[in-house]
Amino acid sequence: MARERRGGGRRGKAGRSGGGISQLPWSNVVNTAPKVELLSPDQLDQLHATSMRILSEAGIRVMGDNVMDLFENAGAIVDRDTKTIRIDESIVMEALKTVPKTFTLTARNPAKRIALGGNNVNFGLVAGPPNVHDCINGRRPGNYEDYCNFIKLAHHFNAIHLIGNQVTAPQEMPANNRHLDTYNANLTYSDLSFHATAIGRGRAMDGINMMAISRGISVEEMRHDPGVITIISVNSPRLFDDAMGDGLIAMAEHGQPVTITPFTLMGAMTPVTLPAALAQQNAEALFGVTLTQLVNPGTPVMYGSFTSNVDMKSGAPAFGTPENSKANMISGQLCRRYGIPYRTSNANASNVVDLQAAYETMMATWGAVLGGANLVYHAAGWLEGGLTASYEKLVMDVEILQNMMEFLKPLEFNQDELGLDTIKDVPTGGHFFGTDHTMERYETAFYAPMLSDWQNHGAWEAAGSKTALTRATEIWQQALREYEAPEMDPAIREELDAYMAKRKEDIGTDEP
Amino acid sequence: MARERRGGGRRGKAGRSGGGISQLPWSNVVNTAPKVELLSPDQLDQLHATSMRILSEAGIRVMGDNVMDLFENAGAIVDRDTKTIRIDESIVMEALKTVPKTFTLTARNPAKRIALGGNNVNFGLVAGPPNVHDCINGRRPGNYEDYCNFIKLAHHFNAIHLIGNQVTAPQEMPANNRHLDTYNANLTYSDLSFHATAIGRGRAMDGINMMAISRGISVEEMRHDPGVITIISVNSPRLFDDAMGDGLIAMAEHGQPVTITPFTLMGAMTPVTLPAALAQQNAEALFGVTLTQLVNPGTPVMYGSFTSNVDMKSGAPAFGTPENSKANMISGQLCRRYGIPYRTSNANASNVVDLQAAYETMMATWGAVLGGANLVYHAAGWLEGGLTASYEKLVMDVEILQNMMEFLKPLEFNQDELGLDTIKDVPTGGHFFGTDHTMERYETAFYAPMLSDWQNHGAWEAAGSKTALTRATEIWQQALREYEAPEMDPAIREELDAYMAKRKEDIGTDEP
Repeated sequence: MARERRGGGRRGKAGRSGGGISQLPWSNVVNTAPKVELLSPDQLDQLHATSMRILSEAGIRVMGDNVMDLFENAGAIVDRDTKTIRIDESIVMEALKTVPKTFTLTARNPAKRIALGGNNVNFGLVAGPPNVHDCINGRRPGNYEDYCNFIKLAHHFNAIHLIGNQVTAPQEMPANNRHLDTYNANLTYSDLSFHATAIGRGRAMDGINMMAISRGISVEEMRHDPGVITIISVNSPRLFDDAMGDGLIAMAEHGQPVTITPFTLMGAMTPVTLPAALAQQNAEALFGVTLTQLVNPGTPVMYGSFTSNVDMKSGAPAFGTPENSKANMISGQLCRRYGIPYRTSNANASNVVDLQAAYETMMATWGAVLGGANLVYHAAGWLEGGLTASYEKLVMDVEILQNMMEFLKPLEFNQDELGLDTIKDVPTGGHFFGTDHTMERYETAFYAPMLSDWQNHGAWEAAGSKTALTRATEIWQQALREYEAPEMDPAIREELDAYMAKRKEDIGTDEP
Repeated sequence: MARERRGGGRRGKAGRSGGGISQLPWSNVVNTAPKVELLSPDQLDQLHATSMRILSEAGIRVMGDNVMDLFENAGAIVDRDTKTIRIDESIVMEALKTVPKTFTLTARNPAKRIALGGNNVNFGLVAGPPNVHDCINGRRPGNYEDYCNFIKLAHHFNAIHLIGNQVTAPQEMPANNRHLDTYNANLTYSDLSFHATAIGRGRAMDGINMMAISRGISVEEMRHDPGVITIISVNSPRLFDDAMGDGLIAMAEHGQPVTITPFTLMGAMTPVTLPAALAQQNAEALFGVTLTQLVNPGTPVMYGSFTSNVDMKSGAPAFGTPENSKANMISGQLCRRYGIPYRTSNANASNVVDLQAAYETMMATWGAVLGGANLVYHAAGWLEGGLTASYEKLVMDVEILQNMMEFLKPLEFNQDELGLDTIKDVPTGGHFFGTDHTMERYETAFYAPMLSDWQNHGAWEAAGSKTALTRATEIWQQALREYEAPEMDPAIREELDAYMAKRKEDIGTDEP
């Protein structure tokens, strides 16, 4: 009864604001599409062999003694002067034995648990932009209010499965403790899992602790049922930063998943040729994957791909390019070969939410999905090569993701859906609008778009000739109006607040 | 020497107008991507069996006695009162034996011969819109000047392989003979193959005759080396118009290829369920394919798919939807099963060149390419559900097609491209910009976009903050400025003019 009343209230509210935003229900998306294998088995072997030679002959430079110790114990050749670690294939292969093929991330709302690996595909909110933009207020530096708005939108739109690293930096807050406020916003305004920053041990531990508090479990319990994930970006070519190494170790020690993503823009951080870029990406990613297993065998880990090209005229990064789509697919082949869950992105390089932003994003999304990505990071809101989080782009991206989710729904059918009887019943040149077969199904037969407008030109004009960009502005405003915060137990609220206060006091003016 | 001078002149001209539009060279595109098979073999069997029952139990209504005669002779059950033809599977299978798996279309420029079938994929200019639009002059009824401009753009942009049925209707011209002027424009302003209108025998024959004249060969010679193609749109459900039947017969008699495209919008002309829509499409397409082989065994024929859904709220057609992409892929499975070359489209339902137009077009393009389409019709310029030919949309579409062409380039590599040596040479955390490996390749390493702008935000702003739509307007204007008409032998010019004059006199005020 109480539930019914609440449901009614929701409908009532949606009704007042124009019927509510049409969107797909929250779901765990299964990638039913066949994976595209662009490389032959022999070519894949050649890539792998090149990566192994990069690791054994050139090696990876690391900044931390602890990382060198771990690899030395595993039999690597460690040059302490140059901080370079050379490993042979056997060390990598030994590590791969303990990598989980699939793992889960459990949010404070267990109904929003996601699986990473196998045929699961999840979409993440854009992460990291210093700026935000919307078509009403323009471009501005990241701030806490916009940060919270984006978290609300991620909570509102069911196509978004995960909150990435800071959707925008709240630049008005102290850099050494604002991660506490952003974690808190993630936990307050959404009930999704999120990315814990791994710049140093402190930020990673805060993410782990705060997620455990919000779930009402201990950090020890969360070790076996992870709740946060991090991304270690390799400083390509072949360099692991110290702070990132510490974050990785903290996460792995506590059984929380780590993604290893080399930052491999072809022509800049790698050679210009795609095979070389992928061989280098592969070497760097496997090095990080190996490290997670040396820290704690069985640590959930993802193989991250961010290989794209640069504009050779300006040196600026390009995304959603043909090369980027190929890289997305081939990286998936590598991940399946090694049995590692796969993270990539569907970025674009446009400076504005325009045609380019749309077709580049769609191009990259197909590459990611056909590549078998388990996590498509930056999937909602990415603009300006990642320097701006865009409200309108987020809306368009949700539409693109929903199109893909609908495309991926398995096609099962019976005799009734083959429709022979209704086809025989309708006269030649007639129509099916009023048939029972149609009437029984028409409301749910097709994907109902959120952003696309399918009216004819006259009706569209009469409705104000609104472009999709104008409609996107209306939709994010409506979403913020319709947003409902997930409930939180007051005791947990109190515990989170106390944790944050204590940590801010502890950190003071130091790094966490 | 003369050639060199001409080449130099071209470069000079391009230089004056800002370096010329960057585009890929004209090429026959091979679809190297694995084809996506959405249906299991068993599901494909069920679709096929349903189609066969539609043909044998419900039948197809035709308007022409000649069509009924042909099918009666082949053993079909023909009901002359209701003009309904029922055929069983054996008649279809017999016809399929003579369908060529691949055929070619030879333009007046033999270097622009295209192959339809196998792994070949070709992109066609939008066909049929009554209106045109550009961002400078707005929306207006089709007219001859715009018609010619679009043909010039189709000639200029190498991604366009074929001129479809009238890119826009020149509405100021007499409806009964304007096909002569549009054929003439196709042959004058481009050197591509084109679609001959099959509304009645006369229009089809004019297309055949004028292409033969322009190639300097006889109609008899062209029978063995086709130059024009037509599309027969089935008036779904299950109705073949008389005029279309006559056009089909004229084309088939002369060995010119025919495409059979049922107009199957789910929920309107077919049941709302995708399997039923495809079963009906398949029945209608196979009926038309069978007819071509009854007229003239061995006639090149394509299986056309145009299955998409309607907006169940307004009844308006929707394109670039998830259902449309699935239909594009499954239709390809059917074509491969039957060994028939495959035509589909990559349409969108937007009323304006906006985000929706971009992501829907890209969505449909992936469906078409992964479905193994040999001809993607309406691939450049389609807007407003096909009611408007758009200049800016054409430019964006060329960019989308070029992205796809580049994606489809096979990935072959050697040790040098695996780049081990250069990776070992560049220090950790360094960059590859200046390496020999990069310098030797950077100019051609990546796809250079025509429309996309990859500058960083500051440089983009300094260059005028132009959106892709604004840049598209500049590009089509530049393309028209840079356009160079293909040469034509004066004798052929004279012969074409004489043919047109004679035909206009013959037609008078009658239908052709």
